[in-house]
Amino acid sequence: MAKTLVFGHKNPDTDTIASAIAASYLLNQQGQDTEAVAQGEPNAETQFALDYFKVKPLRVISEADTKTVVLVDHNEAAQSVDNLADVTVENIYDHHKFAFTNSTPLYITAKPWGSVATILYYEFKQANIVIPAEIAGLLASAIISDTLLLKSPTTTSYDQPALEALAKIAGLEDYAAYGLDLLKAGTDLSSRTDKELIDGDAKSFEMGGHQFRIGQVNTVDIDEVLSRQAGIEAAIAEEGYEDFLFVITDILNSNSKGLYIGDAASSIEAAFDQKLDNNVIDLPGVVSRKKQVVPPLENQL
Amino acid sequence: MAKTLVFGHKNPDTDTIASAIAASYLLNQQGQDTEAVAQGEPNAETQFALDYFKVKPLRVISEADTKTVVLVDHNEAAQSVDNLADVTVENIYDHHKFAFTNSTPLYITAKPWGSVATILYYEFKQANIVIPAEIAGLLASAIISDTLLLKSPTTTSYDQPALEALAKIAGLEDYAAYGLDLLKAGTDLSSRTDKELIDGDAKSFEMGGHQFRIGQVNTVDIDEVLSRQAGIEAAIAEEGYEDFLFVITDILNSNSKGLYIGDAASSIEAAFDQKLDNNVIDLPGVVSRKKQVVPPLENQL
Repeated sequence: MAKTLVFGHKNPDTDTIASAIAASYLLNQQGQDTEAVAQGEPNAETQFALDYFKVKPLRVISEADTKTVVLVDHNEAAQSVDNLADVTVENIYDHHKFAFTNSTPLYITAKPWGSVATILYYEFKQANIVIPAEIAGLLASAIISDTLLLKSPTTTSYDQPALEALAKIAGLEDYAAYGLDLLKAGTDLSSRTDKELIDGDAKSFEMGGHQFRIGQVNTVDIDEVLSRQAGIEAAIAEEGYEDFLFVITDILNSNSKGLYIGDAASSIEAAFDQKLDNNVIDLPGVVSRKKQVVPPLENQL
Repeated sequence: MAKTLVFGHKNPDTDTIASAIAASYLLNQQGQDTEAVAQGEPNAETQFALDYFKVKPLRVISEADTKTVVLVDHNEAAQSVDNLADVTVENIYDHHKFAFTNSTPLYITAKPWGSVATILYYEFKQANIVIPAEIAGLLASAIISDTLLLKSPTTTSYDQPALEALAKIAGLEDYAAYGLDLLKAGTDLSSRTDKELIDGDAKSFEMGGHQFRIGQVNTVDIDEVLSRQAGIEAAIAEEGYEDFLFVITDILNSNSKGLYIGDAASSIEAAFDQKLDNNVIDLPGVVSRKKQVVPPLENQL
């Protein structure tokens, strides 16, 4: 068994899976003994990328069964393995805000860029390590996924050059066409139950005493998702979440609506300067949870 | 005024001052507008290095008067400016354990190496930016200081090559001879009051509910320092510290003794597997607070 596990956050998305695979490969090339694993099955978008580049899904874990771990695409305990406190975090690659505490010096490579895949592309380049074509394809997919094809406000000047270089290595002649297919693969929500919808990409955040949970789905038709409002609300109630904001994002028009269940309605309205109507709030121009949902909520709460 | 302040921890040591100066220079060369500042006056060792390389001491601040800051050689709020919560941390260069929480993605370059100066040497190299001779001299001094001339167990395989390259840039022909003079400059404790002794390099740590304060002095004669025990204990009592461990390190023989005042005596004894005798505990082989004092205490508490 590998000495060190490399994994991303719970409810893995494409950036988390691609980054775990790429970081593990990079570290192994540098003489370490690591295995990329995941805290869940790939979602439909990630599965599309894995199929396209013929990469097997990662082994799924809920606890780390090694003494040392590497975190990618997350650093907060709530998004990590259940026994994080019992293992040593040796290394972190991340592009999120931080809430990380440990007891020994470690490696951290954090940059406020569009995806961890972008960070890893430059790490490979700097270390002069060749990126295998299939890993380049997954990293390109991750950049497309996290930046919504370079259209999200989280996109930085580092992401496009990385995506172009990775697409070339992966043999993707038209990354924009591939990217649209990839994003659409993630928007087929019809086969997912209401519980799967709210759990799919949800992350927990501690904000001003509130245990906030924020989910997000990408779609090409917000109204189609909202036609399932009653079922979604019932699923949220059934899971017992106190504060749940479900962000429904139109990836073609770069807009969102939020479905909110909880006791902080006035804070939600103030954070986004919009009114809730039947638990639904307009989030015009919002596509990024990290950049456009979490910060205003944190400021408000 | 510069847009962004760059500073190290309270009770600045040579690594904190040198790293602030070097990081600010590096960031400015990359197009940013930063000023290196300090959270206190240079200690005797740092002043020796500043004099030797003809660099002026940094402006001293207690609060950041900019909206954005860069932290070097620390990441914990207790070691930072009083108004840290009101400013945005854009970037961190550090080699300590982490206890950092913020609300926006940022740059972090953390590596478990002997000094932040070592990390910055490689950052300059990677960015292809020439290090001015006097900054190289300060960085070399910082590596010597933090690794006790490469003898501390915190020393990694990265520190010696960095020190050798920096010494060359700085025009230091015999860095070992310079280093001994530098370290000795930091051990002249006769001119310092008991209060200055315990405050000099002390850092606060939250451990298992205890607000622990750990100070350290380097010396060439532990008994000479312990001849001031009564005065040192009175100074600790006067400052009102609940748990204070004062580590007295013999830099020539790589040993320490600890003077402990507090209500966790049995934890201290268990952590180091030694007995306290008249508040003094042997710490054989201990020279590094970060690597040999804090981790066993954290494990115990």
